[in-house]
Amino acid sequence: MQIYDNALAQNVARLLDEIRAARPLVHQITNYVSVNDCANVVLAIGGAPVMADDCDEVEDMVAIAAALVLNIGTLNSRTVEAMFLAGRQANRLGKPVILDPVGVGATRLRTETARALLREIKFSVVRGNISEISALAGNAGTTRGVDASGAEADPAQVAAELAQMTGSVVVVTGAVDAIAHGGGVLRVANGHPMLARITGTGCMATVLIGAFCAVTDDYSLAAAGGLVCLGLAGERAAAKHQGIGSFRAGLLDEVSLLCGRDVAEHGRVHVE
Amino acid sequence: MQIYDNALAQNVARLLDEIRAARPLVHQITNYVSVNDCANVVLAIGGAPVMADDCDEVEDMVAIAAALVLNIGTLNSRTVEAMFLAGRQANRLGKPVILDPVGVGATRLRTETARALLREIKFSVVRGNISEISALAGNAGTTRGVDASGAEADPAQVAAELAQMTGSVVVVTGAVDAIAHGGGVLRVANGHPMLARITGTGCMATVLIGAFCAVTDDYSLAAAGGLVCLGLAGERAAAKHQGIGSFRAGLLDEVSLLCGRDVAEHGRVHVE
Amino acid sequence: MQIYDNALAQNVARLLDEIRAARPLVHQITNYVSVNDCANVVLAIGGAPVMADDCDEVEDMVAIAAALVLNIGTLNSRTVEAMFLAGRQANRLGKPVILDPVGVGATRLRTETARALLREIKFSVVRGNISEISALAGNAGTTRGVDASGAEADPAQVAAELAQMTGSVVVVTGAVDAIAHGGGVLRVANGHPMLARITGTGCMATVLIGAFCAVTDDYSLAAAGGLVCLGLAGERAAAKHQGIGSFRAGLLDEVSLLCGRDVAEHGRVHVE
Repeated sequence: MQIYDNALAQNVARLLDEIRAARPLVHQITNYVSVNDCANVVLAIGGAPVMADDCDEVEDMVAIAAALVLNIGTLNSRTVEAMFLAGRQANRLGKPVILDPVGVGATRLRTETARALLREIKFSVVRGNISEISALAGNAGTTRGVDASGAEADPAQVAAELAQMTGSVVVVTGAVDAIAHGGGVLRVANGHPMLARITGTGCMATVLIGAFCAVTDDYSLAAAGGLVCLGLAGERAAAKHQGIGSFRAGLLDEVSLLCGRDVAEHGRVHVE
Repeated sequence: MQIYDNALAQNVARLLDEIRAARPLVHQITNYVSVNDCANVVLAIGGAPVMADDCDEVEDMVAIAAALVLNIGTLNSRTVEAMFLAGRQANRLGKPVILDPVGVGATRLRTETARALLREIKFSVVRGNISEISALAGNAGTTRGVDASGAEADPAQVAAELAQMTGSVVVVTGAVDAIAHGGGVLRVANGHPMLARITGTGCMATVLIGAFCAVTDDYSLAAAGGLVCLGLAGERAAAKHQGIGSFRAGLLDEVSLLCGRDVAEHGRVHVE
Repeated sequence: MQIYDNALAQNVARLLDEIRAARPLVHQITNYVSVNDCANVVLAIGGAPVMADDCDEVEDMVAIAAALVLNIGTLNSRTVEAMFLAGRQANRLGKPVILDPVGVGATRLRTETARALLREIKFSVVRGNISEISALAGNAGTTRGVDASGAEADPAQVAAELAQMTGSVVVVTGAVDAIAHGGGVLRVANGHPMLARITGTGCMATVLIGAFCAVTDDYSLAAAGGLVCLGLAGERAAAKHQGIGSFRAGLLDEVSLLCGRDVAEHGRVHVE
């Protein structure tokens, strides 16, 4: 039987309260598929979302934001340039930057863009599924054969490899999420299979992590915070809704209704 | 005790019926965050939304539309050029144009773009929150110090200043909305705090105003119409839904279910 | 009394099961209004959506996709170029391509773009409303006067004309949908007027057709499959929801909850 770490869940609860008190501005350069859900989930957790992706304004926006999230879900040449400008500005100003390398490995453009972003920008957190993180970790120097890019790879190991390569906290989301940082691995066991049945829940996990990064520099705890909140909300929404349209609305409901006590009691996060 | 103006609410109710009879085409050049909600809310009120933002077609689309809404929420160089082309075409053809200067004041690009639009295009209505309208009114000639851009500014006064500068009807939305026109100020007291907890309700207010402008040239009444309808729907949705995902769906429900009688009885609009 | 063809409905039911077993990747280059609904409805039917529209990656994405959907709802010069690249690649690789000529006839750009796409790319299915398909069929050689572009035109006849001109299966959606192919016409009678009261249901019909095309090369049956599923889900959602926000969520619910038996029993498709 897994013993969860109540102290970690309580720390997440405390950060949730801080987000709601501080209402941090989370700047997102993201895709047009899940952008509305990403804005609403940041509002639901207590932050303030702002979307801006023109090269002539992203540096100004980063300057007033508390965190920056880059998501390559529907990247194009214009928005990629804006991502580099915004990311460098956030690095200069010491603000957290979070990367969601959506679909990396599927096309050369995505793989090359994500790698270039990782080379030029220091990310606080990188979050992807096992396939995406494997594509970044496995093909960039180490030789491990095809198992690295498939379901057989161990999420914690793949996350740890990319964490070592980049110095970022690296998150692999799945049935149980793995969060690798310099000193070890955290696991988050909240969640529900329904989360994989609507679009954008990966993106939503990433922006929630961004909201938590805005109020702490313990980025592995911030990652745990985002994942506990989305996972717990997913469990509760799935208990009420069977269809995916209602589940989608219910997921936002449950994030907005979460309180620190819920998280402290039901957050399932532990040190591996 | 505030005495509301039943004649004004009844005029709004009449316009609502006209929208549903005429089904006016409302052309929107807008952001990709709230675009789906903006399309659906125009359908809910009885209009027909159309989104088109390529420079090679916006003038054609304006020619068949009954109103044009420009929203700079996720502006970029391509869509800004389209906004100028579309706005000038609407002015040439005598069709109402409504501006939503989202985030103006936050970046230089937004402020300069909004000001350039105000210089080159004659807007029927400009709608923003107190911060946005202050950024346009306060920094453009008058000198009033920092209070003008904060919460302490009087919405009606700020709206009146920009109305005088531009000749447009100017709306500042907030707990009580202020509508300034050449001859005075209207107030709309419908609404609910939940409206501020989801993304895009400002944008939705603006496109509803656009739908009303399509059926009348009394643009301050049109502004009241959009605000009464969204506010009343917000009150009703908030009475049924506590989470923000359900509230978002419920808001569209209530707009679509509004009838003229609801508006005539529960619209809270008055002349100041 | 119309006798529906049980064999056809049973074939649709079989294809639905195949989609859920194969989970085909449906690549969409589409508009930013309905893109989230289009992603979620593909997930609801059992497929896997992917949106990618940069010219530097669409050919790679088509190479791993099972079907390609092109939708010109918010076309611009960048995405139109991507549509040509992706469409030609799909033709080279023998993958089905489906066109949704949104708003064709409303602007010259839309009409010229849709015609150029039809000239250069071989589409498996083209789906539009009577006005859109008339604009493509009626103005491209035959001379029939204004009746062709209006409500008086016979959907099956207009669809058959464009089918003959292009060699594609052509679908005109409306109260009863018409599907024209080389050998005749199918009709689908599922649906509900509420489907016309939210944005994006035409786009959703098209991507569902795309999901069906991914598992069969009988494209008229695939078209019937997409229309039966959306129509049946619309009927069920309308029985539960009166407001358009709830209906929108309910529509996705009902698509996700459809099973083969529902389709076999309640699908109303017949050969004309």
